[in-house]
Amino acid sequence: MITPAIKFEQNKLFIIDQTLIPSKFEYTTLSSAEETCDAIRELKVRGAPAIGIVAAYAMFIEAQRNHTIERKQFQKRMDQTFNLLLKSRPTAINLKWALMRIKNIYDSYPDQSVQNIVKHIRSEAVDIHKEDYDACKKIAKNGLKILPNPCNILTHCNTGSLATGGWGTALGIIYAAAEKKYKIHVYVDETRPLGQGARLTFWELMQNKIPCTLITDSTAASLMKDGKVDVVLFGADRIAKNGDLANKIGTYGLSVLAKAHNIPCYAAAPTSTIDMSIKSGNDIPIEQRNKAEILKIYDYNNSQYNKSNVYNPAFDITPAEILSGIITEFGIFHYPFEDKITKTFR
Amino acid sequence: MITPAIKFEQNKLFIIDQTLIPSKFEYTTLSSAEETCDAIRELKVRGAPAIGIVAAYAMFIEAQRNHTIERKQFQKRMDQTFNLLLKSRPTAINLKWALMRIKNIYDSYPDQSVQNIVKHIRSEAVDIHKEDYDACKKIAKNGLKILPNPCNILTHCNTGSLATGGWGTALGIIYAAAEKKYKIHVYVDETRPLGQGARLTFWELMQNKIPCTLITDSTAASLMKDGKVDVVLFGADRIAKNGDLANKIGTYGLSVLAKAHNIPCYAAAPTSTIDMSIKSGNDIPIEQRNKAEILKIYDYNNSQYNKSNVYNPAFDITPAEILSGIITEFGIFHYPFEDKITKTFR
Repeated sequence: MITPAIKFEQNKLFIIDQTLIPSKFEYTTLSSAEETCDAIRELKVRGAPAIGIVAAYAMFIEAQRNHTIERKQFQKRMDQTFNLLLKSRPTAINLKWALMRIKNIYDSYPDQSVQNIVKHIRSEAVDIHKEDYDACKKIAKNGLKILPNPCNILTHCNTGSLATGGWGTALGIIYAAAEKKYKIHVYVDETRPLGQGARLTFWELMQNKIPCTLITDSTAASLMKDGKVDVVLFGADRIAKNGDLANKIGTYGLSVLAKAHNIPCYAAAPTSTIDMSIKSGNDIPIEQRNKAEILKIYDYNNSQYNKSNVYNPAFDITPAEILSGIITEFGIFHYPFEDKITKTFR
Repeated sequence: MITPAIKFEQNKLFIIDQTLIPSKFEYTTLSSAEETCDAIRELKVRGAPAIGIVAAYAMFIEAQRNHTIERKQFQKRMDQTFNLLLKSRPTAINLKWALMRIKNIYDSYPDQSVQNIVKHIRSEAVDIHKEDYDACKKIAKNGLKILPNPCNILTHCNTGSLATGGWGTALGIIYAAAEKKYKIHVYVDETRPLGQGARLTFWELMQNKIPCTLITDSTAASLMKDGKVDVVLFGADRIAKNGDLANKIGTYGLSVLAKAHNIPCYAAAPTSTIDMSIKSGNDIPIEQRNKAEILKIYDYNNSQYNKSNVYNPAFDITPAEILSGIITEFGIFHYPFEDKITKTFR
């Protein structure tokens, strides 16, 4: 049923080029860290968990390519690759989290042969992938507890199989509900400027025959007023220690609107998305993207284009206190989050 | 400085085809009621006041074409034209208001010659156009009273010279502020799906060298949270007796977000936009538009496209009580509006 965005077969890494969906659906190989960085930057692969998984595999690919070099040189090469991949996108913390897990492998066994380390790295990358899939399945199970049946769900951006190790976070809950024959219907907002809702989530849901309706981002509020939304579900790219979270631009507005209409509003994310080093949302770096992403559909001429000011942040920050909860593989965290998050990480 | 969207010269009606902006800027002739209906439906001309003006001129053009026929036949022909134009778009009340003014002319003088009636119609259409321009200038003057200086304004859709008889409502206030050398900066949201913000308002402001920044619709909330918006200004397509109003989809959400962030939020509209026959927003008809407007940028194939559900209302309803006020040519109405609106219309 679910289409995996990432495949790792015979030590080769394949991703679906998500910039081509829905017009083309094809796997492409990533055969180096550079190619992986480009793919991440160009959003051929996106979604916080998916980025982490792909980065881990890219570390393995570089490790394998360097498996004949001397241990110290290897370490240096791997650290370069680590830094290269780390810089590919700034907001999603899963990237750093996955890279750190790989770094811990090659840092921890100074006496082992490079060949052995490479094997360990491979196995760690595969674990990261599998653990994400399992975490998403648990998130889905936990998420079902807050889902009325029947219900109308509003979701933002893409948090499905394409965004993760193959199941999904917010969308994973929806898949689990569909499997259990819940009577659900999903409002998918298009998620400008890159249309992850319109291109990816809408496509995923139609592929899986889940009833869904596409809307523009700014139609959400009137649907809420009209009583057509029972719950709002989205993902997260980084969650601070206090539960504040960064997610796709528009998430904050949806959460304020949900609160104003007394509609439950949940984020769903694996705990790999939690960044314990960050106290609150104020400290999460927000990626600024280029103006072309917004302007390209509007036919401005070069001179107008060059003169124009465009503000295109990829994410916004939703304060913990306006969320109904954060659904993780360890259960649903409610505000105030800090204690529970700290306990989980102890 | 300001580019008129509608020109009436030597008894001929010209409009800027707004679907071509910003890539092309050209006037096109509307030489019949049918052509005018098509232009209105296809949004070649849009904006509640502009639609009313163009419809009034279209009535004159049809009157002129029929100026040699017998009085009773003329009356019948004009009523057919009235009904045709009235149906072109359902939400903006200025259309009906302007058509009624023309109908009152040919209904009121049963004994006058057709030639004379045609002259009266011409003069009424020109008056409607001129009165709208004057009303917008008064709106601008009144609007300046609520505008801090310096200030950052967030606006939605297009309410400028393109949307009106040549000055603008919400954007007209901004033009007046610029003339008075206020230090203003305008955040323009793109206004999906048709991009009236990105294509028209952003273009108008850049043409007039007014500092402005384009954002996606869902970036507004985080700008508000970050304290970057001092006032929200938009127009209206129909205002009910109690002050509830229909305006471009997304307006309701912006007004809820503005309230949640304690940001003043005003609608600006001439009183021709007020429909005293409608008690509240619940009774305003909302135009539903086709799925292509949203989907066309997303490359779905025919079979996916045909199967897809898309909800594309052109407008939403903003309840009177969450607005800071409605800025009209007769002053600023504050909630509760009903008494003041009724008094103005007495």
